[in-house]
Amino acid sequence: MEEFERIVYDVFAKRCTSRETLEHLTGRWGILVLAALSEGTYRFNELRRRVDGVSDKMLSQTLQALERDGMVLRVVEQTIPPKSEYSLTPLGAEAADRLVPLIHWLESRMPEVAEARERYQGR
Amino acid sequence: MEEFERIVYDVFAKRCTSRETLEHLTGRWGILVLAALSEGTYRFNELRRRVDGVSDKMLSQTLQALERDGMVLRVVEQTIPPKSEYSLTPLGAEAADRLVPLIHWLESRMPEVAEARERYQGR
Repeated sequence: MEEFERIVYDVFAKRCTSRETLEHLTGRWGILVLAALSEGTYRFNELRRRVDGVSDKMLSQTLQALERDGMVLRVVEQTIPPKSEYSLTPLGAEAADRLVPLIHWLESRMPEVAEARERYQGR
Repeated sequence: MEEFERIVYDVFAKRCTSRETLEHLTGRWGILVLAALSEGTYRFNELRRRVDGVSDKMLSQTLQALERDGMVLRVVEQTIPPKSEYSLTPLGAEAADRLVPLIHWLESRMPEVAEARERYQGR
């Protein structure tokens, strides 16, 4: 019987690389970028408009981290000037399948969140 | 027929309060705190140990934001010194039901993420 070395990933461990990737997926802009790309392919400027409030710099950094983690595919068209199109990889689509329902659930529960905030304020 | 004013929440809109709550749920520490509390009730120091690497200050801020949003319940025991116990509200449990599977999915897919990173590095 062969033995295989198997890395166990645990986001609760400070130095586990899975924690870094979790932050790329669920960070301030990462989750919105993945949810937007679950709607289809976007060019950079289209994506910046869809993700209201993101700066060019933050969107670049977010896309680069997600591309490096294998979640986002960047295709560069050989036009003048060159244009980049962004889409989800199959792995990124699996992530979005888990993030988009979280967003929809939260949007539907915001009245309860608003009530909780009022109670907290009034204590 | 009566008409009701209905607020539409949209995390893609820069000023929507749902975006702030989304960040509380999925932020660096929020997601780990919610996932930990889905295992049961924790005292502050137990939770700090479970969420490896979090500082007292960040854990306090995270718990306060989640309590304000109605996700976390804090019960103060009238002992000397007083002790606080933290648990999920039903709303917080619904959030955790969506976040814990994301974490488990990501931990299981980290070998693919690691491969993607090597490909990215080697370009």
